[in-house]
Order: sequence, then C-alpha cells, then structure tokens
Amino acid sequence: MGKAGLAVSPLAPARFPDLPVIDGVDFASGAAGIKYQGRTDVTLIRVAPGATLAGAFTRSTTRAACVLDNQAKLAAGGDAPDGAAIIVNSGNANAFTGARGQASVDAVTGAVAAALGMPAGQVFSSSTGVIGEPLPHDRIVAIIDDLARGLDGGGIADAARAIMTTDTFPKGASAVVEGEGGQIRIAGIAKGSGMIAPDMATMLVYLFTDATIAAPLLQQALSSGLDATFNAITVDSDTSTSDALILAATGRSPAAPITALDGGVGAGFVAALHGVMRDLAQLVVRDGEGATKFVEVAVTGAASQGDAHKVAMAIANSPLVKTAIAGEDANWGRIVAAVGKSGAEADRDRLTIRFGDMVLAENGWRAPDYDEVAASAYMKNRDLRIAVDLGLGQGARTVWTCDLTHGYIDINADYRS
Amino acid sequence: MGKAGLAVSPLAPARFPDLPVIDGVDFASGAAGIKYQGRTDVTLIRVAPGATLAGAFTRSTTRAACVLDNQAKLAAGGDAPDGAAIIVNSGNANAFTGARGQASVDAVTGAVAAALGMPAGQVFSSSTGVIGEPLPHDRIVAIIDDLARGLDGGGIADAARAIMTTDTFPKGASAVVEGEGGQIRIAGIAKGSGMIAPDMATMLVYLFTDATIAAPLLQQALSSGLDATFNAITVDSDTSTSDALILAATGRSPAAPITALDGGVGAGFVAALHGVMRDLAQLVVRDGEGATKFVEVAVTGAASQGDAHKVAMAIANSPLVKTAIAGEDANWGRIVAAVGKSGAEADRDRLTIRFGDMVLAENGWRAPDYDEVAASAYMKNRDLRIAVDLGLGQGARTVWTCDLTHGYIDINADYRS
Repeated sequence: MGKAGLAVSPLAPARFPDLPVIDGVDFASGAAGIKYQGRTDVTLIRVAPGATLAGAFTRSTTRAACVLDNQAKLAAGGDAPDGAAIIVNSGNANAFTGARGQASVDAVTGAVAAALGMPAGQVFSSSTGVIGEPLPHDRIVAIIDDLARGLDGGGIADAARAIMTTDTFPKGASAVVEGEGGQIRIAGIAKGSGMIAPDMATMLVYLFTDATIAAPLLQQALSSGLDATFNAITVDSDTSTSDALILAATGRSPAAPITALDGGVGAGFVAALHGVMRDLAQLVVRDGEGATKFVEVAVTGAASQGDAHKVAMAIANSPLVKTAIAGEDANWGRIVAAVGKSGAEADRDRLTIRFGDMVLAENGWRAPDYDEVAASAYMKNRDLRIAVDLGLGQGARTVWTCDLTHGYIDINADYRS
Repeated sequence: MGKAGLAVSPLAPARFPDLPVIDGVDFASGAAGIKYQGRTDVTLIRVAPGATLAGAFTRSTTRAACVLDNQAKLAAGGDAPDGAAIIVNSGNANAFTGARGQASVDAVTGAVAAALGMPAGQVFSSSTGVIGEPLPHDRIVAIIDDLARGLDGGGIADAARAIMTTDTFPKGASAVVEGEGGQIRIAGIAKGSGMIAPDMATMLVYLFTDATIAAPLLQQALSSGLDATFNAITVDSDTSTSDALILAATGRSPAAPITALDGGVGAGFVAALHGVMRDLAQLVVRDGEGATKFVEVAVTGAASQGDAHKVAMAIANSPLVKTAIAGEDANWGRIVAAVGKSGAEADRDRLTIRFGDMVLAENGWRAPDYDEVAASAYMKNRDLRIAVDLGLGQGARTVWTCDLTHGYIDINADYRS
C-alpha cells in the first residue's frame, strides 16, 4: 500500500491494532483509480442518525474546497438527526481548483446523500494528494452505490489503508472508558507522512465514539486536546492545504450521557480521547517521510507558553538538527543555534540541554562531565528525547518530530511522477 | 579547499574575480591547524589609521562571544584613528563557550593589538565552525607575528579561501564609483554555505572601500542595504550564532569625501555598495550546501511589506518546494501550500504564480493555457525564477534560495566528524 516502492517506516508498529467496533459507524472502501492503481483509494463512512459531530481544520489561507465545505456544514451545528457520512479519497487533494473544486465536492457529497438517503448538508468529504489538478470526481461517484452496499461496522482497518498517500503503514488507535452503566469506546484512524506541520489543526483524522454527548461539549473535548497532540507534531514544517479532523459520537453506548467534562466520566472521556489523538499524532511522525528516528523535544523553563512553543518548534523544524540526528551525531551546538534563532527570550548562561538523561550543556557552556562517547552512543537509539530548559519561567511545551534523511529527498523530489 | 571531499558547487562562478586593491587594507592568511589540516584557517586584516568602520551582526540570542565583543567595540563609535584589525578563524565558532569564549577573544585580539601596535578595542574578531567546543586560541596566537609580517594589499583572494568552512568556492565582489576628483573602490569577501537564514544580519562578510566617509554615514549606507541583500537569502532556514559583517572605509581615495547619501556621488556609492552586498549574498546561495539550482522568489501584490516577506520566505524555506526544485518537478501546488501556511493575508482567487515568463496558475485555478511539458522543461534550468502575485496591495519582496538535495543531507549528517 502507499506509494509504490516505499519501504515500511522502521518506526512503524509491528501491526495495525485491533480497534473496537463503534456501534453506529460503518465503513466501506473501494478502488476508483483516481491516481493509484492496484489499491483502494476511496472510503465511505456512515454515521447513524442521532449522532453528534465535531471537527478541526487547517487554517491555511489556501485550504482545499472540501475543507471549506466541511467548515460551512459544521458551522450549522454538530447535530445529525438523520445521520451523517464522510467520503474520503486519496491521490488528489482538490486544492487550488477554483470554483470547479466546490463543484466536485457537491457532485461527490450529493451522490453520497442520494445513495444513503440523508441531506447533503450532513455529508463531509476529504481529498488528499496532489494540489492543483482537477479532481476526477466522476470516478468516485461511479463507485458510491457499490460502497453503500458494502458498508460494514468492521471495515475501519481497510479505511485506514484507503486514505494513505505517501504513508507506509495504516494508523489506528483506540481507548475504552468506563462510563456509568457501561463502557464508552473510542476508535480513530489517521493518514499523514509529509507536509506535516499542522499548527492550529490536523491532518486527515477520523475519530469515532459511541458516547452520548451533545455537539458543543464534543467540540470542546476535541478542541482542548489539539495543542498537545496534532499541533505538537512536525515532519517538515510544511502545513497542508487539506488537514481535517472529524469526530463523531453515536450515542449507542449503554453508558449514561456525558454532560460535563471537568470531572468523573467526562474527565475520563476527555483524557482517553486526548490519548487516542496523541497516539495517532505520534504515529504520523513515525511515518514521517524518510524518518528513521522518532524524536521528542521537551522545552521547559520558558518565559511563556508561547516562547516554549517557539523554541520547541525551532528545534523540531531545524534542518541542521534533523540531519545531525539522521547522522547519529550528538551535535548539540545546533540545538543552541535553534534556540538562538527561535525569537524566544533566552539567556545563554541559564540554558540546559539534555539528551535522554545526560546533561550535555549547562551554565552557558559544555557540561563539565560531558561524555562524547556516551552522547554518541545515545544517538544510536531509534527513539530519542531532547530536553531544553531555558531557566527563565514556567512555560513548557513538548513536541514530536523525526529526522531528515535521504529518504525525504527521494520521496519528494518526484512525488507527482 | 573547504570540507575535504566536497565537489565545487555547480552554481559556482568560473573563477574568483579580480578584486581591486583597496589602499589602506592589508591581508595575511595562515594555517593554525584549528580543525582543518593542509589548508589556511586564519586571516588577519589590517586597516590603516584614520579609517571609519560600520557593522551588522546576528540577532541570535545565543550569539558567539566574538559577535558580542565586536558589537561592544563598535558601539564606542566607528572611528579608527590608530587603525583597526580583523582576525578571523575557521573550524571553530567559539559559540556557547561561556566565559571562556570571551577569554579566547581577549587572548586573540590582545595578541593582534600587541603585534600591530594598536588598541585592543580596535581589533575585531570572527570565528566560524563547530558550536560549543573550546577555541584552541593558543594556536591562533602562535601564528599572529608571522601573519603581521606577511600583511599585503594583494592578499584578499587568499583571505576569501582561509575563512571557508563547508563552502566549496571563495566568494568576492567589487565595484568602482566615480567620485569627485577620483575613483572610489569597493571590494568584499564572504563565507557561508549552510546555517544560512540571516534574517536581521549576515554571515561572515568583510567589505572594504577607500571612500572618505564619516562612521555614522558609513553605517547608514550599510544598514539601508541589509534587507534587500543578506536578509533576503536563505539556504536552510537556520540562523547562525556567528553572522557578522564589517565594513571599513580607509579614506585613501583621491575623491572628495562623501557627506550625504541622498544624491550625487553619495547615492552612487550606496548603490554600488548595495550591489556588492547583493552579489556576495547571491554567491552564498550559489554555494548553499548541496545546491544544484539558484532560485529567485519574487513576491508582489502583498497587503504589506511584512506579508510579502512572510510569503517569500515561506516559499524559499519550504522543504517540499525545495525538493520539488531538486527533482526538476514543476510542482506549483507546493507554492500554493507555502503561501497558505505563511501567515500572510491571501485570497486564493487573486493569486498568480509564474515560473520564468510562464503563468502556471491564476484566478484560483490552474492557468487555462497551462503547459506541463513547457513547465517541466523550464525546471531543467540552473537558475530559476518563481514569481507570486497576491493581487492585494503594494507589498513586494524578492529573496534568493537554492534547492534541497541529497548533498545537503550528506554534508550535514556528519559535519562534525
């Protein structure tokens, strides 16, 4: 699956997880031949009547037609008394496609609405792939009836595969929360590998739960988790035109409705939801284009939260830091340079830099017991942790990224061909 | 010269230019064995008594000891009644070296002051290379007397070589201005190849002129040119800890003193100086680590100057744009994505994208006469021009960058080793 010829990321999990079935959500995937041959490239998801919906989308000023359409539809409120549907294609982003882009969205969502007997205003869509080429929406429309007939509660793993582009493995995560009177299940899938710097939104992510929860509360549970999950990852600093996350709650769990988030089951639900979001975000980084290392960058002691974010992202996006990691070189001087360019308040003499548990630099200088051999040995690990304490205040931020390798160049020097 | 094993950039000029001798400036280069073997790595520059000086430096919050020292010395005013000197080493940046960093600066500049018989307050220094390792300043001090004996007005080309790190060719540029009563000469050298995103400053650049001009006016002539030259280039978005530019005017030209910059010879001098600065800045990009393409990114029609800068730099720093250029792929959709993520005001339907003279996209859509074959053929050129008009206002900005290739990864995955 994924782009022909791409080896599976060395950071991939051993296998796709067993995701719980979410009562009230069905999936069907098929091959429309939009760009890829010999694989599925369209997924249809049906959510049962009575569900509530929430979403988050890229703030790119050149965002795709489907993103604009989803935002308009969700703005009407997240209630789906007649059910809802999501149709996703890979191979073409339908972005920067002018008025024709919206026409393609209308054609596809209209066909889904007709096939499933629901208003088009409840049919959401996503497209991912090349930017600026007309979406051959007729090919999608042509298989919608087949997809509608094949809808099945067990199809989520196939859906995770159909939405892949340069991804080398499908991504899924789940959680179970003990509610009052029964369990609440959460399951989600994501795609993403390159053009990953979601700041303020996400990539393509679909989350499902059988919780009973009103739409505004569902949106609040989702939004409060974005900064620490999807907005805390970067592969290449390039923000997509197409990032979209949709969360649907079917209300089919026997558990009592969630009516507040600040304690009890509500707080547990939020924690579990954010855990699933963090798992999926980290899986996107583990499938970062060309990645061979997974890197946690933890910044503490910043003068403000904003400064902590600036420093963490300056390090995580620095080509020089990322190539040093690829070369397993403990070149902490490049961390110093990244802090210096970040625009955040910093004081050389209060800066502390750690790789794993080792202190490499402190008090404006290489640590007295700095051990180059031990530092180099640490860099051989597949999962790395870089911690920077600025020694100025309480601002803290943790983000995740990957290294920058020849694989990234290979994949992106000819993505369209 | 440069890093062992690095081929000369395909974007390098055919040869180092013939630079005019600047009366009152002498150069000597030597090998101190700081890091590199079998090549020169220290340059001493002496400027005759009566010169005026100006400078510009990185605003990194983790800037090197020598940068802080230069800034303190220049803050006392740019007059050098007893002459001035500049001592530069490659192979070690003396950055993030704590209090020992300043001690190394004092040792080196003190030795130069003693050898040349001038106050240490007029001896400037630069160090470029690895960050965070102690500078073996004794090795520099040991050759200063030899350097002082070898000072020569014709040594500028050797100086351009001695200051190289990952540079693959030495960089020089010059201009001659017709003054009142004689010619005014300008000559400069620069080093820089990676960690290039000078925003607000420069890399290592030394400019010399025989003009007679007061220090405040000289600083004004320099500062007014920074935004359109050194602040308009980026190789990898990583700002250095060590960027420094020093401009010395010896007053040895027979031409009348320059007493104003807003007309006549003064305006001509400013234009010529900025031309030399632009030439050197572009040469740094042409020696960008791993570069195979030189790319001009010209943004017009932005709502403000700040927006134009954001869009130009978002395009010039986008790994996806730069890898597409490396692959000679006319993937203009990635330009759209870079505009979208830039943070600048943008309207999809007013955006126009040109490669060379070809319009690829306009009115929110691929151009009606878009020709993929012609666009692909254009990408084969070594020098490329990407023009983006936002259609919103008068903000304009032109910047220069290079592509992102396997060579960049090769160079930076093991720079320290």
